[in-house]
Amino acid sequence: MKAKVNVLPIRTGGLPIIVLEPSFARDLDVQPMDRVVIRKAGNSVVATVDYYSKESDDYPVGVFEEVAERLELKSGDTVDIDIISKPQSLDFIKKKMDGEELTSDEINSIVADIVNDTLTDTEISMFVAAVYTKGMTMNETVCLTRAIAETGSVLKFGKDIVVDKHCVGGVPGNRTTMIIVPIMAALGYTMPKISSRAITSPAGTADTMEVLAPVTFSSSEIKRIVDKVGACIAWGGGSDIASADDKMIRVRRPLSLDPEPLLLSSILAKKYAMGATHLIIDIPVAQDAKTRDIGEARVLEKSFVRVAEGLGMKTVVMVSDGDQPIGDGVGPLLEARDVVKVLRNHPKAPEDLREKALRMAAKLLVLVGRVDTEDEGYRLASKTLSTGKAWKKMKEIIAAQGGDPNVNIKKLKPSKISYDIKSQRKGVVSDIDNHVVARVCRILGAPETKEAGVLFYKKYGAKVRKGQVIATLYGASEAKLSMAKSYLKRHKMFDIR
Amino acid sequence: MKAKVNVLPIRTGGLPIIVLEPSFARDLDVQPMDRVVIRKAGNSVVATVDYYSKESDDYPVGVFEEVAERLELKSGDTVDIDIISKPQSLDFIKKKMDGEELTSDEINSIVADIVNDTLTDTEISMFVAAVYTKGMTMNETVCLTRAIAETGSVLKFGKDIVVDKHCVGGVPGNRTTMIIVPIMAALGYTMPKISSRAITSPAGTADTMEVLAPVTFSSSEIKRIVDKVGACIAWGGGSDIASADDKMIRVRRPLSLDPEPLLLSSILAKKYAMGATHLIIDIPVAQDAKTRDIGEARVLEKSFVRVAEGLGMKTVVMVSDGDQPIGDGVGPLLEARDVVKVLRNHPKAPEDLREKALRMAAKLLVLVGRVDTEDEGYRLASKTLSTGKAWKKMKEIIAAQGGDPNVNIKKLKPSKISYDIKSQRKGVVSDIDNHVVARVCRILGAPETKEAGVLFYKKYGAKVRKGQVIATLYGASEAKLSMAKSYLKRHKMFDIR
Repeated sequence: MKAKVNVLPIRTGGLPIIVLEPSFARDLDVQPMDRVVIRKAGNSVVATVDYYSKESDDYPVGVFEEVAERLELKSGDTVDIDIISKPQSLDFIKKKMDGEELTSDEINSIVADIVNDTLTDTEISMFVAAVYTKGMTMNETVCLTRAIAETGSVLKFGKDIVVDKHCVGGVPGNRTTMIIVPIMAALGYTMPKISSRAITSPAGTADTMEVLAPVTFSSSEIKRIVDKVGACIAWGGGSDIASADDKMIRVRRPLSLDPEPLLLSSILAKKYAMGATHLIIDIPVAQDAKTRDIGEARVLEKSFVRVAEGLGMKTVVMVSDGDQPIGDGVGPLLEARDVVKVLRNHPKAPEDLREKALRMAAKLLVLVGRVDTEDEGYRLASKTLSTGKAWKKMKEIIAAQGGDPNVNIKKLKPSKISYDIKSQRKGVVSDIDNHVVARVCRILGAPETKEAGVLFYKKYGAKVRKGQVIATLYGASEAKLSMAKSYLKRHKMFDIR
Repeated sequence: MKAKVNVLPIRTGGLPIIVLEPSFARDLDVQPMDRVVIRKAGNSVVATVDYYSKESDDYPVGVFEEVAERLELKSGDTVDIDIISKPQSLDFIKKKMDGEELTSDEINSIVADIVNDTLTDTEISMFVAAVYTKGMTMNETVCLTRAIAETGSVLKFGKDIVVDKHCVGGVPGNRTTMIIVPIMAALGYTMPKISSRAITSPAGTADTMEVLAPVTFSSSEIKRIVDKVGACIAWGGGSDIASADDKMIRVRRPLSLDPEPLLLSSILAKKYAMGATHLIIDIPVAQDAKTRDIGEARVLEKSFVRVAEGLGMKTVVMVSDGDQPIGDGVGPLLEARDVVKVLRNHPKAPEDLREKALRMAAKLLVLVGRVDTEDEGYRLASKTLSTGKAWKKMKEIIAAQGGDPNVNIKKLKPSKISYDIKSQRKGVVSDIDNHVVARVCRILGAPETKEAGVLFYKKYGAKVRKGQVIATLYGASEAKLSMAKSYLKRHKMFDIR
């Protein structure tokens, strides 16, 4: 049926919505939650039906902004609206709910319908729930990962070796990416790194890199940057890379559902889409990290390696110590400053961050066949750092992404609204609680306020005097600083014995 | 935060929606799909967040009609909006996904949050998927049924015996309810029957009863009607009886998910809410009915009886033959006419409908202890019909529901737009395909157009001559009639051998 539309200035962040007058909906034989296809000038969008509560004085059909954008609609434009039958992928979702193994074609059909917004959130939920309760075979997980990657942009750099890395996360300040990428790129390897922003942590790599340069690019811009300087450190959510994954994450959030097949495909699809051939994965283990013990880490390692190699990526896993924050600062600016100090061989560069990055680079250099042993790799990576080659490459990356490569460490200053935490006793730091660190930094205003966060002077094993300043809080505002202080009265960040 | 609202003339049919300006949402720290609570004058509604695409020239907050209705809001009113934390019921949904048994309290919490619109469709989907993939114990199913009933209105009639019936469905024209209810009520039993409208069938009992009287009532109106005349035949969806179920059905629809615990609780919650003490369930069996063979029917019977008796309802199941339509007509008006003919002992009353209703009434009379054998019950029910007592009671019910009790069969006329189907050969009717019957009636315009449908002159086992009229199609319009005719060129309704 043809109809004139009103563009409503509303967006859901999810499936496109069309609002129909009741009589119009009746003629079309659709009900709320049914799907229709809207066509204009050869383009089409699938949208879910809402109802106007009465006949409208204006046009009988309204569309939310998501629909208007995709079809380039203005109010008053005429579109063609048709009821559509249920997508076949619903049968495959049901099949998975019934515990059967899906074929590659069936998985492709589900993922394509997720990307095209043909499936509603309700239906995507059913798929996520099916995977959670019934699991997936290794073969299904490989197919799913490839489907997620291939329904978005897949980049090709024309190189035999394309390097990537990933950290499972959960450790504040763990910004090794920003050191490894310039080291590997300085040594001639292509490393198109896309990272996430913080969701529940005080800073993601994308938030931290953004202190030094823009990070939001389309996939073609990413390709251009990497072709030019060999590497990038960009935000993955800014492009159409593996976008099916974002839609699944949205429905996973309320129940915090992390079924292993979706966890693996989520991570590996992005690497696959970036054309990675060699991959290192960091699994930090600690009581308060995502992976709690070494047994869990080994199980995860095995799954990662099997799926990644099923996709043709050579993969090495590093199980690391996630007991306390890495580096001195937590929060985008403080973490960026730590990274720059390491890259510039600053005398006060945090040793733990430098060390961890070098060890990972060493493993990567073995994986790509540049060296035979990790010791050799460590020496090569270390030299690349100490000779300034890594920093030179980082400046090229910053410039290519549109930032100012002349970074002045002294100008990377945290918020002036600060408070010193003093040790209440003499002793040795026996624990720093990562959860409390993350929470305090969020309360202080990170990651939205780049200058907010916590700077540590004493970490695990350090001797402290009574009354000695052991950390400084930097708040986005006085109000946030006092909220953080009051939170710290109820929760212990440091354990000193 | 306090804010003035605009009431937007849009409804979703589902969870209430609030539309926030981006800056307002940022201050509240919410994202699309997050939940907020909106309060006004002591009342509150939980709503899901959509975004305005830009700052609005009017008020910073818009609410869909569902929100406005519940809080009695007008544009310009001030409300209080707060972010709310995730409902605890999400943990219980997760627990079910992990395959654990839920406690009664946990089930109550999930169902209460469904009724209060605290859970989004996405989250309800996760629950439905969990039940589908992990199943429920008999104890969980009983708890779920009680929770669904008790979160809506539960009616009490102060009688020792309250009778109810249910048919699993799938057989066109099967309108026994409208005969059994007046028989039982005429014999002094309380029978508050709520029925559904057609979803995919040509007519539900509610659609058919609506030909004779209004069927949409609040639960207190239902109580008043039943207190007065001992029975009702109302639409269940018009009240707040077992409303949690409707919300689960909505998310079950796209995947046609019919997990047994939800099927059982859906049906039995309504009976429990109506205070039923004695219950008969009709399970029609046929290749083209919902239950395909006798084995399936026996499994379903066992589950029904266990859950119903777990809820304290004495239950008897009748497994019936669902091979062809019951009665002569299919479509609301034609079915209502069949019912009236049976109740008024019309010489052309359809014998199969009369016979099935009497057999069910007989079983019910044994169940409530009125008679010792089904033969006695059959005789009593038959007498109640033939003496006109059942019709007298039906007239009371029609009047109590606000209809005109002086029903003139001659005025119950189907559409004038009709077409006679003639037999293409001499032989015996060996099959009538229920699916084709249902589809044709829907194409003809049933149930929206009450006068549309199919009238059968010959059914299973009847001898027919070549060229003899065996059925008439009644269309809502010429266009619909010709669509039905063209559908019948491709699909066979009658099999004549």
